[in-house]
Amino acid sequence: MADKDAKEERKEIGELGEFGLIDHLTKDVELHQKSTVMGIGDDAAVIHQEGRHGIISTDMLVEGIHFHLSYAPLKHIGYKAVVTNLSDIYAMNAYPEQITVSIAISNRFSVQALDELYDGIKTACRVYGVDLIGGDTTSSTSGLIISITAIGSAEPQDIVYRSGAKPGDIMCVSGDLGAAYLGLQILERERQLYEAHPGVQPDLEDQEYLVRRQLKPEARRDVIDTFRKYKITPTAMMDISDGLSSEVFHICKASKVGAFLEEGKVPIHPDAEKMALKFKMDPITCALSGGEDYELLFTVAEADLEKIRYMPSVYIVGEIVDEKDGITLHTTGGNIHPLKAQGWQHVTG
Amino acid sequence: MADKDAKEERKEIGELGEFGLIDHLTKDVELHQKSTVMGIGDDAAVIHQEGRHGIISTDMLVEGIHFHLSYAPLKHIGYKAVVTNLSDIYAMNAYPEQITVSIAISNRFSVQALDELYDGIKTACRVYGVDLIGGDTTSSTSGLIISITAIGSAEPQDIVYRSGAKPGDIMCVSGDLGAAYLGLQILERERQLYEAHPGVQPDLEDQEYLVRRQLKPEARRDVIDTFRKYKITPTAMMDISDGLSSEVFHICKASKVGAFLEEGKVPIHPDAEKMALKFKMDPITCALSGGEDYELLFTVAEADLEKIRYMPSVYIVGEIVDEKDGITLHTTGGNIHPLKAQGWQHVTG
Repeated sequence: MADKDAKEERKEIGELGEFGLIDHLTKDVELHQKSTVMGIGDDAAVIHQEGRHGIISTDMLVEGIHFHLSYAPLKHIGYKAVVTNLSDIYAMNAYPEQITVSIAISNRFSVQALDELYDGIKTACRVYGVDLIGGDTTSSTSGLIISITAIGSAEPQDIVYRSGAKPGDIMCVSGDLGAAYLGLQILERERQLYEAHPGVQPDLEDQEYLVRRQLKPEARRDVIDTFRKYKITPTAMMDISDGLSSEVFHICKASKVGAFLEEGKVPIHPDAEKMALKFKMDPITCALSGGEDYELLFTVAEADLEKIRYMPSVYIVGEIVDEKDGITLHTTGGNIHPLKAQGWQHVTG
Repeated sequence: MADKDAKEERKEIGELGEFGLIDHLTKDVELHQKSTVMGIGDDAAVIHQEGRHGIISTDMLVEGIHFHLSYAPLKHIGYKAVVTNLSDIYAMNAYPEQITVSIAISNRFSVQALDELYDGIKTACRVYGVDLIGGDTTSSTSGLIISITAIGSAEPQDIVYRSGAKPGDIMCVSGDLGAAYLGLQILERERQLYEAHPGVQPDLEDQEYLVRRQLKPEARRDVIDTFRKYKITPTAMMDISDGLSSEVFHICKASKVGAFLEEGKVPIHPDAEKMALKFKMDPITCALSGGEDYELLFTVAEADLEKIRYMPSVYIVGEIVDEKDGITLHTTGGNIHPLKAQGWQHVTG
């Protein structure tokens, strides 16, 4: 162990054993939340929510489906896996406090590779102040699978469901859309180039914004902070993981209302707009159907309109209407179309 | 759909889409717990634990590692996946109330196959009175992966950690050991026979007990009920998933104590004893190192000894001693050996 080069050598997971591996990965876990009574190290973790409601969300990420190791660094995969779960808790107008992380890995991963993954997981925990309180580490016959459960809490009256939108409510999003999807297109293109010409290094520097939105998204805790500060309680909210159109449909279905979206008001970052056109795609379609932006879509009562205007980076994109009026898109050209819930069309021209 | 035979046809997962699949699998989910405020259908579930402590445990099961579809029916896999998680909550002397279930599946699974899996999951929820409140359904590039998080609650003073055992405490197990391991050996033997002679039907009928202990284990809720009834609070407890020896080491390490196990008092079912000898294995080694029995290992203060004697199917297997006295096995032959934490030896004779 005195040999400095020794730490550069690949360490096999089998050398540590299951319990050794868990100890190794979790030895420097810090706890931030007073609601964490007991973290890792027993049959189960113990928390105390002080009479508040508990908020639970869970997600599973599969290599080759949700991420590709060819372009996503393990640290970013760990970070994003946590952030996308926390986003679901914020989308309830609640604060995440704990997570559990289960992973399945094949033996092509070294201990160092897992350290990188956990580095990303722990970084996200530190940035968002959540505690890693448990999990499971097991073998996989093929790739990497990550399952995260996030636990949060909120005062009962603060919790915002998808089902509370009312006709007349203003529909807002917390930031620009479509960038994560275009970041993915760039990474996919580079992957294909790399597979065809293995020596070529990817050149992503001029697309830093789009690539970051895909590889290292952030959850909008700051929006929830602002809601508390200005005493705003949205009437309905969810996070935009599948694309704005799809989420508008979810809120309308849960709230039994219709909605119109104003095409011209959907925020699109200039980099996203430029890249969409370069890929011969329609920028608005990228924004409506792209997904993975992890911005918040929320509705507020008209009475809160003035407060909303003070909020940084909130965009008013439409309005809730009666269910019978349907879900429509008002185009910049002045037309009204039924909104499509999904469906991706390349611009063929 | 009027054609009765139509429902026998294989239905592809893709026909339903992700949201359709979730709706299909969860449409008949029943809620039993008053602590469940909001189940499936929003970004996150909402619970309320009424000032009690929350208990969280999570596990991931991977096809080809934890189960083989060649001998485990999907319904049993679903049932066991839930039960093994609940077992961790009972092992804290707490009651499970909710679970989330995430699955990754490849397209070789039909909707009917998933229905079977969820049938087992829902059956376990009904039997143990827990609510399925959330989850995730995603694609897998290869096999079936199941990740379950169980959430329970308990009064703070009732929670039992691994770390509370004291010298002089009595060490007990809640039932016979080794049977699940021997059940697995039988199933593995049948699998190999089947692979060599595909026409042969497995004959498991005379080994119903051992096979059931492997394929359809139960969590010991009844033991927790009895603790409450007799006002017993164990000083330490955990469930036996990796084998008695391994769990004794965990409790001793967490409690900073030693222990002795009396070989002659470790309960072994007659079927397990017979089958071990047939496989040329040492029955006590099966009981100490087999794992997956999901019995409870617990320690109680000597003052509770009389109460423990009244409990059905509780076996006193040893005693907690000072840390310096180590962890030993007192053999039926009168010898004292250091207990081995793991390690599996076939009887070579």
